[in-house]
Amino acid sequence: MDFDPTSHPHRRFNPLLNEYILVSPHRAKRPWLGQTETLQPTNLPQYDPECYLCPGNTRSGGLTNPVYEQTFTFENDFAAILPPPAPAPPVPSHPLLISQPVHGGCDVILFHPRHDLTLSRLALEDIGHIIEEWIAIYVKRSMQEGIKYVQIFENKGSMMGCSNPHPHGQVWSLSEIPSIPSTELASLAHYAETETSSTDAPRGSQGRPCMLCEYSHIEVNAGDDDGRVVVKNDHWVALVPWWATWPFEILLLPYKRHIPSVEELLAEEKKAFADILSKVTIRYDNLFSCMFAYSMGMHQRPTRSGDDIAHLHLHFAPPLLRSATVRKFLVGFELMAEAQRDLTPEQAAARLRGVESKHFMSS
Amino acid sequence: MDFDPTSHPHRRFNPLLNEYILVSPHRAKRPWLGQTETLQPTNLPQYDPECYLCPGNTRSGGLTNPVYEQTFTFENDFAAILPPPAPAPPVPSHPLLISQPVHGGCDVILFHPRHDLTLSRLALEDIGHIIEEWIAIYVKRSMQEGIKYVQIFENKGSMMGCSNPHPHGQVWSLSEIPSIPSTELASLAHYAETETSSTDAPRGSQGRPCMLCEYSHIEVNAGDDDGRVVVKNDHWVALVPWWATWPFEILLLPYKRHIPSVEELLAEEKKAFADILSKVTIRYDNLFSCMFAYSMGMHQRPTRSGDDIAHLHLHFAPPLLRSATVRKFLVGFELMAEAQRDLTPEQAAARLRGVESKHFMSS
Ligand SMILES: O=P(O)(O)O[C@H]1O[C@H](CO)[C@@H](O)[C@H](O)[C@H]1O
Ligand SMILES: O=P(O)(O)O[C@H]1O[C@H](CO)[C@@H](O)[C@H](O)[C@H]1O
Repeated sequence: MDFDPTSHPHRRFNPLLNEYILVSPHRAKRPWLGQTETLQPTNLPQYDPECYLCPGNTRSGGLTNPVYEQTFTFENDFAAILPPPAPAPPVPSHPLLISQPVHGGCDVILFHPRHDLTLSRLALEDIGHIIEEWIAIYVKRSMQEGIKYVQIFENKGSMMGCSNPHPHGQVWSLSEIPSIPSTELASLAHYAETETSSTDAPRGSQGRPCMLCEYSHIEVNAGDDDGRVVVKNDHWVALVPWWATWPFEILLLPYKRHIPSVEELLAEEKKAFADILSKVTIRYDNLFSCMFAYSMGMHQRPTRSGDDIAHLHLHFAPPLLRSATVRKFLVGFELMAEAQRDLTPEQAAARLRGVESKHFMSS
Repeated sequence: MDFDPTSHPHRRFNPLLNEYILVSPHRAKRPWLGQTETLQPTNLPQYDPECYLCPGNTRSGGLTNPVYEQTFTFENDFAAILPPPAPAPPVPSHPLLISQPVHGGCDVILFHPRHDLTLSRLALEDIGHIIEEWIAIYVKRSMQEGIKYVQIFENKGSMMGCSNPHPHGQVWSLSEIPSIPSTELASLAHYAETETSSTDAPRGSQGRPCMLCEYSHIEVNAGDDDGRVVVKNDHWVALVPWWATWPFEILLLPYKRHIPSVEELLAEEKKAFADILSKVTIRYDNLFSCMFAYSMGMHQRPTRSGDDIAHLHLHFAPPLLRSATVRKFLVGFELMAEAQRDLTPEQAAARLRGVESKHFMSS
């Protein structure tokens, strides 16, 4: 019997997190009788007097937003991480009861004054403003005392715990490197030390192999027809990684040279970044003709002075699987044993390649 | 400033998964304007002619269930893992494109003929039948060729991707040890090799320290008043672990002796297991007076012939946070950086201790 990835269950290795995931592609055939999601409205007003993120409105913390015209950043009124000093927990009474203090700050970035837009419907110029804001916050937070990681992310859609459709993202900066970036950085360092690059991919810091430069290089050069690349431009590639967990997960990264953080992006790379962000989010919305929910997270050099082993990349984790209202549940087996997916990454990439490149709501 | 775990953000270390989680207890104060969940019905019929799991009914795969009177197990009609042989994927063209074959089987265990009951409302005798069924499947699947792990779990509630309220659980058995149990087993082995037990906790295999025997011992002996123990009996303890991720996560385990798997349970330990399962699930339902959703997973010695380093335990991962309809979303920061919780494990344990011990629906 020959191996057919679209019908034979198998496991794939995720070299960033150093773990396997289970691929059960034949499973998409089972009928779905479970929970369905509520569609996100597509007819929001441009300005909502009740929205605490709209220009000129008052937030729940009591402060009033300026009448901002591009992006506007403020400290989260209910921040999960607070400014220093963070009192140290007592010495643990047992080696199994370890804790550590943490301090930092949480920023909210309003992407645009218009309540009804999302990344997928913003002009490239407006996406450019968001990129500049990410860079500014990365630099500013990086330089604050004790900050070891600046985590930029976006929760989009109520399905992903987002409580306000007004386009916005967040940045949580902390005095420790969080678990997942920390695991990734260790994997990148291990790769740099142990692998001998077999391709002509760009080299990483100090001329050592970079796992992500190497990976994007082989994907870009594999040819897109039955591959994992969704869309690319002169500097960036968006692909469904070999080890994707979420049905339509995307890894977005620059592939032409090793770029540790957003701060190192050159003017043309920023322009191409805006372009690819637009292309990815448009394809997402077009897949099921809906406001496609996701969590996005950016991984890079922890702070300005951090380790150049990092290569800038963004993960998109979108929950939808079958339609605009049927999601994948990562639950019992996934929470307790191992991530499991119901279609191959190649199938997901082909689906995303196949949709229109123009937004379904544009006229 | 003195450290106050209920108001100062801090991180706690999870020694099973070898990672930190972020505790932001002051965060529960923020208003919630996001998605609310649909209440699970509490008025289901005892028999539903449309339910493919009720006795005597026909399943979607076309087979008919017997008129079972206690438990009934069948192979999943849409199994994620299939029986051997599993054809081997081709040799990877690059070290970043690794996959491996996997085979095994997926069982569905119907817990009880009645469509309207859940673990929380079953008689202890009926829970006892489920325990016997878990043991029987563990033994049977363990002995099949090439099986390396038997993962017992339950998804309960549509919020957790469960598509049928008829009480049932699943068992996925595989030819590889899945990622999470594999990490846990490595942590247990590391602990056994490096720690010198400081307590009079039961010893693990070959007289070495067992992380989980030790941990349950210190929790049981800490006194429950401001601790993490929710409920215990002569053999088992249910606690909100120091490193809990989900708001009301519970770790359930035997604490009197080292027990690698369900197969080793003595008659009185099985009885106590049924008792504590009932107590935990009743408290869960009573917390918000609803059919409380969760994923449950059992970790133990991978198979009969596996490593005795394992200590039998169950994880309960319930999503609800504030009420019967407001859940915790583990999304952006959590998916991309690190798990984050909004109340301390001690606060969660106190809440669960504080509810009635009699089910809210019982008369
Ligand atoms: O097997 P079920 O109940 O059809 O499906 C449910 O549990 C599985 C195992 O956790 C998950 O992979 C599915 O996403 C979920 O909907
Ligand atoms: O910060 P928000 O948007 O209020 O909250 C959302 O994102 C946070 C960070 O991922 C999560 O911890 C919350 O559970 C989620 O609801």
